Amino acid sequence: MERTGTPRERLRHVIFDYDTLPAKAFDLLLIFSISCSVLVVMFDSVPSFHAAAGDIFLAFEWFFTILFSIEYGLRIYAAERRGRYALSFFGVVDFLSIFPTWLSLFIPGTQYLLVIRFFRVLRIFRLLKLMQFVHEANFVRASIVASSRKILVFLFFVIVLTSIVGALMYLIEGEEHGFRSIPESIYWAIVTVTTVGYGDISPETPLGRFLAALLMITGYSVIAVPTGIVSAEMSSMRSSCSPERLCRACPGLRHEPDAAFCRRCGLPLEDAPDGDGLS
Amino acid sequence: MERTGTPRERLRHVIFDYDTLPAKAFDLLLIFSISCSVLVVMFDSVPSFHAAAGDIFLAFEWFFTILFSIEYGLRIYAAERRGRYALSFFGVVDFLSIFPTWLSLFIPGTQYLLVIRFFRVLRIFRLLKLMQFVHEANFVRASIVASSRKILVFLFFVIVLTSIVGALMYLIEGEEHGFRSIPESIYWAIVTVTTVGYGDISPETPLGRFLAALLMITGYSVIAVPTGIVSAEMSSMRSSCSPERLCRACPGLRHEPDAAFCRRCGLPLEDAPDGDGLS
Amino acid sequence: MERTGTPRERLRHVIFDYDTLPAKAFDLLLIFSISCSVLVVMFDSVPSFHAAAGDIFLAFEWFFTILFSIEYGLRIYAAERRGRYALSFFGVVDFLSIFPTWLSLFIPGTQYLLVIRFFRVLRIFRLLKLMQFVHEANFVRASIVASSRKILVFLFFVIVLTSIVGALMYLIEGEEHGFRSIPESIYWAIVTVTTVGYGDISPETPLGRFLAALLMITGYSVIAVPTGIVSAEMSSMRSSCSPERLCRACPGLRHEPDAAFCRRCGLPLEDAPDGDGLS
Amino acid sequence: MERTGTPRERLRHVIFDYDTLPAKAFDLLLIFSISCSVLVVMFDSVPSFHAAAGDIFLAFEWFFTILFSIEYGLRIYAAERRGRYALSFFGVVDFLSIFPTWLSLFIPGTQYLLVIRFFRVLRIFRLLKLMQFVHEANFVRASIVASSRKILVFLFFVIVLTSIVGALMYLIEGEEHGFRSIPESIYWAIVTVTTVGYGDISPETPLGRFLAALLMITGYSVIAVPTGIVSAEMSSMRSSCSPERLCRACPGLRHEPDAAFCRRCGLPLEDAPDGDGLS
Repeated sequence: MERTGTPRERLRHVIFDYDTLPAKAFDLLLIFSISCSVLVVMFDSVPSFHAAAGDIFLAFEWFFTILFSIEYGLRIYAAERRGRYALSFFGVVDFLSIFPTWLSLFIPGTQYLLVIRFFRVLRIFRLLKLMQFVHEANFVRASIVASSRKILVFLFFVIVLTSIVGALMYLIEGEEHGFRSIPESIYWAIVTVTTVGYGDISPETPLGRFLAALLMITGYSVIAVPTGIVSAEMSSMRSSCSPERLCRACPGLRHEPDAAFCRRCGLPLEDAPDGDGLS
Repeated sequence: MERTGTPRERLRHVIFDYDTLPAKAFDLLLIFSISCSVLVVMFDSVPSFHAAAGDIFLAFEWFFTILFSIEYGLRIYAAERRGRYALSFFGVVDFLSIFPTWLSLFIPGTQYLLVIRFFRVLRIFRLLKLMQFVHEANFVRASIVASSRKILVFLFFVIVLTSIVGALMYLIEGEEHGFRSIPESIYWAIVTVTTVGYGDISPETPLGRFLAALLMITGYSVIAVPTGIVSAEMSSMRSSCSPERLCRACPGLRHEPDAAFCRRCGLPLEDAPDGDGLS
Repeated sequence: MERTGTPRERLRHVIFDYDTLPAKAFDLLLIFSISCSVLVVMFDSVPSFHAAAGDIFLAFEWFFTILFSIEYGLRIYAAERRGRYALSFFGVVDFLSIFPTWLSLFIPGTQYLLVIRFFRVLRIFRLLKLMQFVHEANFVRASIVASSRKILVFLFFVIVLTSIVGALMYLIEGEEHGFRSIPESIYWAIVTVTTVGYGDISPETPLGRFLAALLMITGYSVIAVPTGIVSAEMSSMRSSCSPERLCRACPGLRHEPDAAFCRRCGLPLEDAPDGDGLS
Repeated sequence: MERTGTPRERLRHVIFDYDTLPAKAFDLLLIFSISCSVLVVMFDSVPSFHAAAGDIFLAFEWFFTILFSIEYGLRIYAAERRGRYALSFFGVVDFLSIFPTWLSLFIPGTQYLLVIRFFRVLRIFRLLKLMQFVHEANFVRASIVASSRKILVFLFFVIVLTSIVGALMYLIEGEEHGFRSIPESIYWAIVTVTTVGYGDISPETPLGRFLAALLMITGYSVIAVPTGIVSAEMSSMRSSCSPERLCRACPGLRHEPDAAFCRRCGLPLEDAPDGDGLS
């Protein structure tokens, strides 16, 4: 199949698809290069490694930048709709992966460029397609999207709660115990209600500790709310994925597994797999 | 529609409703003002900001106080039942938003007034209505209310557990390791069982660490209980919240809310509330 | 009703039941006394309070001890089966509530007695009956019991995991970073996997931090397991509590809500509430 | 039953099975020995215990090593397929339980051997079979396996998120606040998103704290995702794990596992696998 079409079509197939051997090989190689270049950026940020092998890291960085630049050029060349690719999520991430290194030729390389370079870790999301996890990713995303409004309400409540408790703790504990301003106290309240609990700020007065204990127990209990929302959503999505029974007259309608008649038009239902040749 | 009625009725519509353009514009402006005034209170509490721009913050505070006072007056004027509004949740919060600043004219402004002023953050809950999240908020609230008795039993158990473990740790660890009294030890037990774990107090004897490990594993496992309660409640509410449609011939069968015909016998369905007139 | 019977029977009714006014009043008074006496023990353990008001606390302690001793005597006297009450959970707790204070007459009062005295907080579980939370408490307990075997398997896995990781961290981090022995390292692993995270011991080598990060992500993900177990159990318990349809010939059998015939004997089913008079 | 067969078969039965009294006694004794030997390794790693009783621990260690060596020999002798046992999970663990101690005769005993020796704690998983928890363990494992792909997608997302946030925090906070390199910052991000929160590294700039608060709330909310996945999976496994029974006249209807008659039409049910011979 991949032998047909113009060279540009064949190239597009290798670069953008995942279903033939050359396309898979290309993507595996790409994921490997991305992982290596991310590791290079990561280790280059460790002071002792940078001192010992900064030059080698720089050489690797240029090697990967040139490689990714060629790849980016090929993608632009092969894309069916070039502007759409260039402005897509992956198009922007691909550009940000190579841009900072080229920029460092003209501007002395700062840490800002290092971090933008690190965003190439996002390219690794292509791995999901390669590993055929798209169905699972879509399921997880769909259930989050379906519950997002309820979770937003929950987060809204958490933010107002932490604001109120933060302001109260600022009053109760005061500057001498580390609650130096309302924003810092709200930060502490978020650290507490999410059960992170760094301990860099912690209450010391009895009343402050009592209020903190109430906040902890609240945080510990209300975690049940988003979990319940997502669980109920996922259970509901799962149970509506059962083998379908179809009505010839109402094609887009789903029916319960024991349905014998269409609930909209009253015609008898047919099984989905062999339901396309009744007469 | 909003052109009809007396001026007071039209004003009430703009202030208290959310469904026409002027009403939405009023609420958007209000939410924006509330957010700004909350930010002003917040930043004013940061010592360095207060030193640098305390006067500007004070000017802003008075600007917003006068704005909210006019708004409060209009609400009182326009409300259908004035006493009911004044004593409602939002009525009290609206009053607390302006009262402390006026009071500071007579009493030298203390931090207490600052914190009461900060409670105006609660006014932002009006955003929920504006964003039409009322349905979601009601769903979340209803499921919490429905599971509240079970969660109270759970919290009761957690409080007795932390009391017992706190008292034991006071005995085992003693004052030299930071467990200076039973209330402090109970505070530590709550910090531990909720998995917050500040580390301001932490056990140091082998026996104390063993008991702490047991408490952590308990806390880590029993978090499943409120989550399970709320999940089961939400799953149940999802599946039962649709009004039922009944078939005269198949009485015990449930139908999907958009069903028009019985999926078993193919007869037309009837609505549940008026479906009791068979003969 | 409570006017009938011998004095002992009437006393038993007031002390052990919860359904008449005198019985409720007795229990409310008891819960209040227990709460006060627990607070007295609690505050007496705070050094500054003990120094300031130790004598008053001692007087209160004797007041409550004598009160509870009289109550214990009345319970023994009124109980239907005295031995059974004395050896029951509440019987033992009631005895432990008064025993340490009397013992302190002969043995100079140590902290051990203080803590045993504090166990009277367990008496407060009687509140559950008073508040008619028995149904909820039974639901929570039944779902925990039903999932206990699966949760035990999960805890078994967590304990073996923390043992292995603890031993590895002892090897990797060593004494200089606070991992001074395998038991201490296992304590750290439990603190980490349960996401408590005191920070009293924390890894400092790159390899140790990598292993710790793996352990954290494991702990963060596997919390889903007990939660899922309990959620599934509670969902299942809820859905089997729906109004039942009964078969006259097979009394103990539950049927699905849309069942028309008994699945065991094939006879037609009847509705549960009015199902006792067909012919 | 266990009296029949050759001595090797009877030995195999005692060693590898769990259903007769001698087999249970053998396994109980084994679990007890494993527990003791694990405790010996554990306590031997505590410096003060090692100094006080190192010789006794060494004697115990040799006693258990010889015991387990004999047991290992018997297992090899009695196993039906010796190579398969030797290469199985338990075969390797059994070998690793005795190998390091014998090796220490030739190589001066290092801590590495101590930790490998500690892996004998894995042998304790045999307890699951003894306690007949195999069904529960399989249920937990099956539900984890069934949800593993979705959880992998979730972990993939968490890892990319922590990488991005870690790199940003490295830029924002910098070396002076403990974020000395990108790997360390990623370690911090994992500590934060999993809500462990040691506090060994914690943000101090306002922007860093704001980003940290966002990360905490994200971590606190997305814990709902794996929990929801596993809950939905377990609910689904519970409701679908019973073999189905079918009615000839009502094909699409599911029946409870103990049903003998169709609950809709009252006809006798047939088993699902051989239920396809209607005519």
